[in-house]
Amino acid sequence: MSVQAPQAATRILLEQQEMPRRWYNIQADLPFPGSPPIHPATKQPIGPADLAPLFPMELIKQEVSQERYIDIPDPVQDALRLWRPTPLMRATRLEKALKTSAKIYYKYEGGSPPGSHKPNTAVAQAFYNKAAGTKRLTTETGAGQWGSALAFATKLFELECMVYMVRISFEQKPYRKSMMHVWGADVVPSPSDRTEAGRRIRAEDPQSTGSLGIAISEAVEDAAKREDTKYSLGSVLNHVLMHQTIIGEEALLQMERANAMPDLVVGCVGGGSNFSGLAFPFLRDRLQGRTKTRFLAVEPDACPTITRGKYTYDFGDTGEMTPLVKMHTLGHRFIPDGIHAGGLRYHGMAPLVSALVEHDFIEAVAYPQRTVFEAAVQFARTEGTIPAPETAHAIRAVIDEAVKARERGEAPTILFNLSGHGLLDLAAYDSYFAGTMSDIRLSDARVQELVAAL
Amino acid sequence: MSVQAPQAATRILLEQQEMPRRWYNIQADLPFPGSPPIHPATKQPIGPADLAPLFPMELIKQEVSQERYIDIPDPVQDALRLWRPTPLMRATRLEKALKTSAKIYYKYEGGSPPGSHKPNTAVAQAFYNKAAGTKRLTTETGAGQWGSALAFATKLFELECMVYMVRISFEQKPYRKSMMHVWGADVVPSPSDRTEAGRRIRAEDPQSTGSLGIAISEAVEDAAKREDTKYSLGSVLNHVLMHQTIIGEEALLQMERANAMPDLVVGCVGGGSNFSGLAFPFLRDRLQGRTKTRFLAVEPDACPTITRGKYTYDFGDTGEMTPLVKMHTLGHRFIPDGIHAGGLRYHGMAPLVSALVEHDFIEAVAYPQRTVFEAAVQFARTEGTIPAPETAHAIRAVIDEAVKARERGEAPTILFNLSGHGLLDLAAYDSYFAGTMSDIRLSDARVQELVAAL
Repeated sequence: MSVQAPQAATRILLEQQEMPRRWYNIQADLPFPGSPPIHPATKQPIGPADLAPLFPMELIKQEVSQERYIDIPDPVQDALRLWRPTPLMRATRLEKALKTSAKIYYKYEGGSPPGSHKPNTAVAQAFYNKAAGTKRLTTETGAGQWGSALAFATKLFELECMVYMVRISFEQKPYRKSMMHVWGADVVPSPSDRTEAGRRIRAEDPQSTGSLGIAISEAVEDAAKREDTKYSLGSVLNHVLMHQTIIGEEALLQMERANAMPDLVVGCVGGGSNFSGLAFPFLRDRLQGRTKTRFLAVEPDACPTITRGKYTYDFGDTGEMTPLVKMHTLGHRFIPDGIHAGGLRYHGMAPLVSALVEHDFIEAVAYPQRTVFEAAVQFARTEGTIPAPETAHAIRAVIDEAVKARERGEAPTILFNLSGHGLLDLAAYDSYFAGTMSDIRLSDARVQELVAAL
Repeated sequence: MSVQAPQAATRILLEQQEMPRRWYNIQADLPFPGSPPIHPATKQPIGPADLAPLFPMELIKQEVSQERYIDIPDPVQDALRLWRPTPLMRATRLEKALKTSAKIYYKYEGGSPPGSHKPNTAVAQAFYNKAAGTKRLTTETGAGQWGSALAFATKLFELECMVYMVRISFEQKPYRKSMMHVWGADVVPSPSDRTEAGRRIRAEDPQSTGSLGIAISEAVEDAAKREDTKYSLGSVLNHVLMHQTIIGEEALLQMERANAMPDLVVGCVGGGSNFSGLAFPFLRDRLQGRTKTRFLAVEPDACPTITRGKYTYDFGDTGEMTPLVKMHTLGHRFIPDGIHAGGLRYHGMAPLVSALVEHDFIEAVAYPQRTVFEAAVQFARTEGTIPAPETAHAIRAVIDEAVKARERGEAPTILFNLSGHGLLDLAAYDSYFAGTMSDIRLSDARVQELVAAL
């Protein structure tokens, strides 16, 4: 019989009551000073009052908090328990296929109703807004992972939800829009006629296919204009990254239970939230000198923010409505080419991730998309789960590291974030199999041009 | 603050090592004689030799076994552990929305890589075929849940896989086809030019959109013709239902842990496998006189096999290639209208389910599709998960039973099978919201005509 022998436990679960009850705020442990957001007009650090039109005070407090831990409110815990704790898996079938001595673990965040890690912060943001009396939330979304997560969360907490969806995704990826409708959200293609920012772009370019930067401008303007409305962002900001640390806090417990600690932690980065959510609780030990764990952020060659962008103050949006934040950026006017990993097409990076890169706590690598899909297919054919194109960037890096380990005769423990499944991204897989997918790399000349303008 | 108060544990998990290690074979406990499959030519009960061209001997033995329990082989357990044990959930948010005193629990089978309960039997069938030296499996699929599950399972056990997919689904639902490609299967639209059965149908009707019955004929013919190839069916047969009993065995442990036992067990039925998988382990206690639990099978008005079909011997396929089995049927030539719940469009019913209906152990009810989607949306907006259209039939019945309980002042415990998520079925939800979905009910005149021909 040529079938394989039985194996040890490969799926480590936590009981519902073991779910972590507080978030980890890495700001408390940074061994270097932070760079505060700056007001675009005054060039002075912004204060809570500047953000009050957009966010409820509890989230503004979290954004600047120096407390190491912040309790997760009970109603947020209740919502999280619809799909958390999430499983930690050992990828034994992938290890065998790679003939590697590396141990590969992954945290699976695709089991949430919207299919990604995004609702971890969406339910928290919906809760704090509901508690502060907000009636309606606006946001932007690219491929739709974040928009669908916020639609889900606002329905749980009985808020209205208005999603500005990048026009090209609105037209080409109808099904995440359908998910948002199921959860009761309004969705319009961006640039839209509903905001001045949208109308201005359309006047300049009636055929504009939109971008995340434009959609952010629209959502921010909408929220700023209406008393009953606030704005919600799915990545980049400190409080968003903090809400995702429940991933890493669970993974720490689970890795302990597996009697394994990672030598390397890997995640894909667009704005930085799924990577940070897994990495920060492990970084806590590194920052405090207790481990030498490596951290690897993986981005697309088409939008190589960390690996080739500039570390400087820049706007978060195209319309220059947000504060300036210090981050790795390709410039707020940069519109990345249309790769399938829509969630990684952001010109900037979370300031916390950027600062940790600058201080050598986080490494980064960029990949072209065909080799990313090759890794995704290898993963699906060994471990079963079909990963999202964004997540597949992390998998590419993990496979490369595992192969390197084999060649060097090393046996590292690798942990990565399987941040979402790819069941709404199957057209991208079709394109890969049909041979019509191209490797899009931002040229050096274009990077020089973009960086020079900063 | 208007947000809800914290609640008790609503998600009951089992450890990996708690996964049941044997299947429950209800044939051992039936208080009535079975009705054996009959050879269409001789009208005599078929023997193992008749089935040997299609199935490996271990599965043929399981099909007729009178053993109460059959051990799950270790490699099958390993494969199941990629996503099992699955969670049991208490639907407290739905209960609150319905203002019901009923306690509603559901077993969530949508967390498998293909997104439904189907891989529970797919990995078992792939294993037994691999062990018997089979190189290639053929099967049919409608909307693609079963085809994608078998593609996944054959990839795990390194078999080739050939899927005959009902042509209208092949054209209208491209993404489950994409999933099968990711897992390396061949997929052709049925009726195809590859088999005599397919060519005959195409000669009669070049525009044929296909049916499950036709696709079964093609898959059976392909398997019968080739020495290295066997056939695999995703429902109806005794061994398939038995492989699904791991659902109910887990649910029994979980309900005990929740200190709750169901008064009513609900599942949707196409061929009967997800319903049986959950129900049979609970039926064991009822058959042995220890409980009075009710069992409710839910089917579509467009294909009301149990509620309005005839209990008689009929073919499993359109091409009359399978044995005759005694079941509720609308006739093997009946092609149901194109409802969105493609997995429930089968003219017959599992013989075990049919016999248990005839002996009053199982009740049945049928629903039109708009009220089914109304229930699906209510579920998604309270519990989060977007259910498959098939599964939504069960949810409709659960909501109706919970409302009845409220009206009667009763507090029953209801358990249902959330057999799959609807993330590949979002076009159906679009149709529901657009108001273009129609309620398709098989007319009484047509039923009379169909039944008279049997």
